[in-house]
Amino acid sequence: MWDRLWVDVNLATNASGTGQPGGDDFGHIPDGAIAARDGQIVWVGPKADLPGEPERLATEVISCNGQWMTAGLVDPHTHLVYGGDRSGEFAERLQGVSYQEIARRGGGILSTVRATRDASEEELLRLTLRRARCLVENGVTTVEIKSGYGLRLEDELKQLRVARAVGRHLPVRVHTTFLGAHALPPEFAGRQDDYVTFLCTEMLPAVAEAGLADSVDAFCETIAFQPAEVERIFEAAQRWKLPVRLHADQMSDLDGGKLAARWHALSADHVEYASESSVQAMADAGTVAMLLPGAFYFVRETKQPPVDLFRKHGVPMGLATDCNPGTSPVLSPTAVMNMACTLFRLTPGEALAGHTHIAAKALGLEHTVGQLRTGMAADMVVWDIAGPHELSYWIGGVRPSARIFGGCPQ
Amino acid sequence: MWDRLWVDVNLATNASGTGQPGGDDFGHIPDGAIAARDGQIVWVGPKADLPGEPERLATEVISCNGQWMTAGLVDPHTHLVYGGDRSGEFAERLQGVSYQEIARRGGGILSTVRATRDASEEELLRLTLRRARCLVENGVTTVEIKSGYGLRLEDELKQLRVARAVGRHLPVRVHTTFLGAHALPPEFAGRQDDYVTFLCTEMLPAVAEAGLADSVDAFCETIAFQPAEVERIFEAAQRWKLPVRLHADQMSDLDGGKLAARWHALSADHVEYASESSVQAMADAGTVAMLLPGAFYFVRETKQPPVDLFRKHGVPMGLATDCNPGTSPVLSPTAVMNMACTLFRLTPGEALAGHTHIAAKALGLEHTVGQLRTGMAADMVVWDIAGPHELSYWIGGVRPSARIFGGCPQ
Ligand SMILES: [Zn+2]
Ligand SMILES: [Zn+2]
Repeated sequence: MWDRLWVDVNLATNASGTGQPGGDDFGHIPDGAIAARDGQIVWVGPKADLPGEPERLATEVISCNGQWMTAGLVDPHTHLVYGGDRSGEFAERLQGVSYQEIARRGGGILSTVRATRDASEEELLRLTLRRARCLVENGVTTVEIKSGYGLRLEDELKQLRVARAVGRHLPVRVHTTFLGAHALPPEFAGRQDDYVTFLCTEMLPAVAEAGLADSVDAFCETIAFQPAEVERIFEAAQRWKLPVRLHADQMSDLDGGKLAARWHALSADHVEYASESSVQAMADAGTVAMLLPGAFYFVRETKQPPVDLFRKHGVPMGLATDCNPGTSPVLSPTAVMNMACTLFRLTPGEALAGHTHIAAKALGLEHTVGQLRTGMAADMVVWDIAGPHELSYWIGGVRPSARIFGGCPQ
Repeated sequence: MWDRLWVDVNLATNASGTGQPGGDDFGHIPDGAIAARDGQIVWVGPKADLPGEPERLATEVISCNGQWMTAGLVDPHTHLVYGGDRSGEFAERLQGVSYQEIARRGGGILSTVRATRDASEEELLRLTLRRARCLVENGVTTVEIKSGYGLRLEDELKQLRVARAVGRHLPVRVHTTFLGAHALPPEFAGRQDDYVTFLCTEMLPAVAEAGLADSVDAFCETIAFQPAEVERIFEAAQRWKLPVRLHADQMSDLDGGKLAARWHALSADHVEYASESSVQAMADAGTVAMLLPGAFYFVRETKQPPVDLFRKHGVPMGLATDCNPGTSPVLSPTAVMNMACTLFRLTPGEALAGHTHIAAKALGLEHTVGQLRTGMAADMVVWDIAGPHELSYWIGGVRPSARIFGGCPQ
């Protein structure tokens, strides 16, 4: 006997084809049925193929009245845990105040570092839950959350504990990422090499021993950490058996895609400036290209990521909100899907796969979440739409009409 | 005795200064209080200035716990009433299918006209309410709704009746606009002059006599209606004592701003290509420049509206979703405010005024809604934010925590 069976539903299973599944047809099963038991999907298919009368198959039968169901959305790149408020700085930047001037006035990323250090763990959790709740209401059932605003061992641990706590307070799966190499902390001004050593020998081992990180990330850029420094960090991560990911080739081509691929990174993120040889390397390594159109939009970037090259070489394209206070105050995955289509010319099918199956792959969870397929977690979202194109079509016009997490209607 | 009194609230009254009120300081009253009686605002100010104990002044006292309150948002340009679904066409266009090809396949605006004509009034209301409900949930308390997908007398009347019905079904004030000159109906192919005559002598009088239109609009563009045709329509509107507005200078400079100003239009909308002489004329006539960043974003327009000229000449800038199925599937006013800041460099203060006070002015309602000021309708929205900049800062991250319509909490 199944726990629950949903019927009268258009399933966008996202489970057809390979590479970028759902790229064309969303794996549509019209007049479908899907069943859950013990939190897992145990049956998916056309209602007509059900092995009996619905009422005899499941304890509870739920009609979706012809609405659409997708896998729960996955947000695989966020900086959700932070203190402070930079909405005033957003306004100043638009009026032409330079980053330097904003930093001089005490703004910029280091203001977030200050506010995050100053916030108690309880306050930080309260602020983070507000943002996480917004993602959850917008259809997210799995979220990645990075550290990187503590930049001191105690505060990085605090951020990661808050990230883990999100999964205990809300119906959402949390993947945590240690991003100590986000910016140089003020204490190490002029001594970046020393900070990288400290990160590799003190911070990362402590984070790993506490079991607080599921992966390790770094910001590889001329203005941040250099490829050779990233290599040292990835080497340390490997010693601790933690998979890596990389903020790569966002503002310039530093061969970040190639670097990520060399270390079999789960994803290389941003990648606007990635070269074809980086794309080729990512294809060979199975590294996901994580597109972040929110940041592209907010910083008014004009260089688009090489979407055609990703397609040509078969690099799967993921999508994420990149929610962060400086360059991507975005908490709507469907808005991100719209931006991916409008600004990067992804198809709505690629966009949905990008925020579900491919996003899951970038978290190493492609066998757990992201598709409507037997054996996967029963994380699903119901949408009152005419078809799955609508998910990428609206700005502010679609929200889940129901949400199922681990087989339980929320 | 007042009906209700809200205290412990940061008021963004939007009522300071002139021109683009709230452009700088949002008319902020910290630790404020605001009272309503019989649906109107009867007192606004610092709580300390209240003429007595709150409990003795009002039947009900509501604490906002330090949250922010603004006037209800006004959406002064929408095409909410339509049948059909063009989300598939959105996807096709992004993949490079031309407008001509889409039209050949039965898509484009005429497909919306067909679907709108085919829909029963009941079905059309159901579809429209779904979209209107979304606007309402996003903070809108006054909305303009245009016809223009019927293009036949009976179907234009049907659209306008549906628009009026929105105001009976939802807590929102509705301003209706007759937009018979939206596109040439297929029945008049090759006979545009005849259609304009029919519009002026049959449709507009019938609409006006039925009391179904609060204003008259036209789409003035090389591919739509020409300035001389618009003049005839505006003349007819004037005979029926209906104020006018104009889709002007969206794709080319046809002196649409000047044309609108000459007829004392409430607003000239889009205006990306408006010349300085048009801007000057609009300033002299008091015509609002209605910016529609959603359409700008969706069609990937690159010509920005002349924001600096509007500022220089003192033309107030309004904002609207322009919600329509072809070029602006947008139902979030705060996303529009974000786009206005990010894409057009408006300040967050200008953006909030644009979606409240200036939007109200574009509907001839500037003495009724759009500011927190005594004598105005008690339409208010409460936001759980650190400050009003946040309203323009987030994509998908702010939604009203409470909504008051005509003095009543919703
Ligand atoms: Zn990031
Ligand atoms: Zn329009």
